[in-house]
Amino acid sequence: MSRAHDDTDGNAAYGKKPFKRAKSHFADRVTADGKDGWPVEAGRYRLVVSRACPWASRALVSRRLLGLEGAVSLAVTDPVQDDRSWRFTLDPGGRDPVLGIRYLSEAYEARERGYSGGVSVPAIVDVPSGKLVTNDYQRITLDFATEWKALHRPGAPDLYPEPLRAEIDEVMEGVYRDVNNGVYRAGFATRQGEYEDACRGVFRRLDLVARRLADHRYLVGDTITEADIRLFTTLVRFDAVYHGHFKCNQWKLTENPVLWAYARDLHQTPGFGDTVDFDHIKRHYYRVHTGVNPTGIVPLGPGLSGWVTPHHRAELGGRPFGDGTPPGPAPAAERMTSGD
Amino acid sequence: MSRAHDDTDGNAAYGKKPFKRAKSHFADRVTADGKDGWPVEAGRYRLVVSRACPWASRALVSRRLLGLEGAVSLAVTDPVQDDRSWRFTLDPGGRDPVLGIRYLSEAYEARERGYSGGVSVPAIVDVPSGKLVTNDYQRITLDFATEWKALHRPGAPDLYPEPLRAEIDEVMEGVYRDVNNGVYRAGFATRQGEYEDACRGVFRRLDLVARRLADHRYLVGDTITEADIRLFTTLVRFDAVYHGHFKCNQWKLTENPVLWAYARDLHQTPGFGDTVDFDHIKRHYYRVHTGVNPTGIVPLGPGLSGWVTPHHRAELGGRPFGDGTPPGPAPAAERMTSGD
Repeated sequence: MSRAHDDTDGNAAYGKKPFKRAKSHFADRVTADGKDGWPVEAGRYRLVVSRACPWASRALVSRRLLGLEGAVSLAVTDPVQDDRSWRFTLDPGGRDPVLGIRYLSEAYEARERGYSGGVSVPAIVDVPSGKLVTNDYQRITLDFATEWKALHRPGAPDLYPEPLRAEIDEVMEGVYRDVNNGVYRAGFATRQGEYEDACRGVFRRLDLVARRLADHRYLVGDTITEADIRLFTTLVRFDAVYHGHFKCNQWKLTENPVLWAYARDLHQTPGFGDTVDFDHIKRHYYRVHTGVNPTGIVPLGPGLSGWVTPHHRAELGGRPFGDGTPPGPAPAAERMTSGD
Repeated sequence: MSRAHDDTDGNAAYGKKPFKRAKSHFADRVTADGKDGWPVEAGRYRLVVSRACPWASRALVSRRLLGLEGAVSLAVTDPVQDDRSWRFTLDPGGRDPVLGIRYLSEAYEARERGYSGGVSVPAIVDVPSGKLVTNDYQRITLDFATEWKALHRPGAPDLYPEPLRAEIDEVMEGVYRDVNNGVYRAGFATRQGEYEDACRGVFRRLDLVARRLADHRYLVGDTITEADIRLFTTLVRFDAVYHGHFKCNQWKLTENPVLWAYARDLHQTPGFGDTVDFDHIKRHYYRVHTGVNPTGIVPLGPGLSGWVTPHHRAELGGRPFGDGTPPGPAPAAERMTSGD
């Protein structure tokens, strides 16, 4: 999400206070019953993401797995924000072709005149009114999995199965605190002790998770769930940005046999790797965080060829999509043109 | 050497010009015949190093291998310079106990009144006069190997054997340009293209060198030579600083089976690993180069336990010390107390 970015891109981020992720300001939900005024409806909403952002990428993956591409259209921002934040400079004329806006902040402004808080992705925008509905990165994917069921593709998996929710929530909570957000706390730390606490937490949690995954193909149950999506979007960025840029360098993902195989397995699963753009990821972090990387130089490495090597995780059993099926290929318009 | 540091620590380093390593200003030689006025003599000279610095570390290794510890005494600076450069803040009262000075620059000043150039390690200082003799990092170790023979220990290896000098020089030249100095050009680049050229050069040369080392235990001939010392002092810093801090991140040393085994082999050879202080190395680079790492935060990683694992390089044959023998343990006073 882009609170991460708004909170941390300016000079203010490198002050004396430890890094703290802001809560999402707009937490309306799009639901089957429309209780917040935003009923699930095919073609009505637009999902705005940056492919650089791990929080937005959760929504990219779950939308693909659930086959919501036809129901919720997609806007992809430039990975490098300017001082007005996320922008549609990748689109012809620098405008999102559906919403007609140049900056995501215009949808925030349409929702709340004079809004001066952070502008973040993922964001769901109501196309008819141009208003932001929600930027609640913790909720959007859970609602995709549960509230949008009527619009799921045939064979869509259950990413948040009722009987496993308590366990999924517990796993996600630890992973969020120590890993998803922990890498940011390490990377944006301005004091040695603050960095060390966060960095130790990252690797302590990854060790725990690796133990769990040593003999289980997925984090909870024997199918892909929301918990896997959330761990994946951090792991896929680990060696490319968190290892060097955020100094989470006890080891590279490629040096941990269990997690590296797990990440490759997911990456090679339709709906995961086909959402990942390493060029967007690297340019975003290395160019935007000038307080961490003043030169803005983007490293050439790491090599990416390992991502397509065999992972042998199928030997652990598991049924990736449960009683469902894998999604087909990404829509032609959404295939990556950079970073391949 | 510390030209590296003097040229690059200040803001000037991050200007528009590509990084260029300065030549050593003081290039007198200490020789057997004393032709520059500095004859080889036991107890007369003091070697000033930083254990952080790869150029100075060459001298540390060759002094150990040749058994010159009794003939040339050792001063170790604080790994973190202040605005007056290398200082003896690790010593009681902040003064080198033999030279009686607080800053290495005082020996430069004694040599040349009003000297305002860079202050670098390794430096050889004449103890009686307190004058700097040489800071010629390319020459000091070759002279240790060839001019100081009368004071070598019994069983000292020939680190620069006559019949192999042309080949050694050629190997060292490529390694210097692309690797020893290449990592600095990558790390201090201020433009993307400049960085990419340097980074590509680093890995291209490492690939060449790895091919050479795949079936030869050492770089030239079948014994340890000066060429191995010079490659080692860069490799041992690779994952700890050059990979992240200098963005040389195509792969970690630990991911290259040949070079990683080669580096471990040397590290486990008496005279190499016992000169290495990872704490000094990391604190120097991450604290001093504020233009690269504004927060001054020193990463916790990488883990170091791999350095002591078996390398199996003895299976390639080779005679580490030729007709000689390994050195004994480092003098008690020179054993590391930090970073163990």
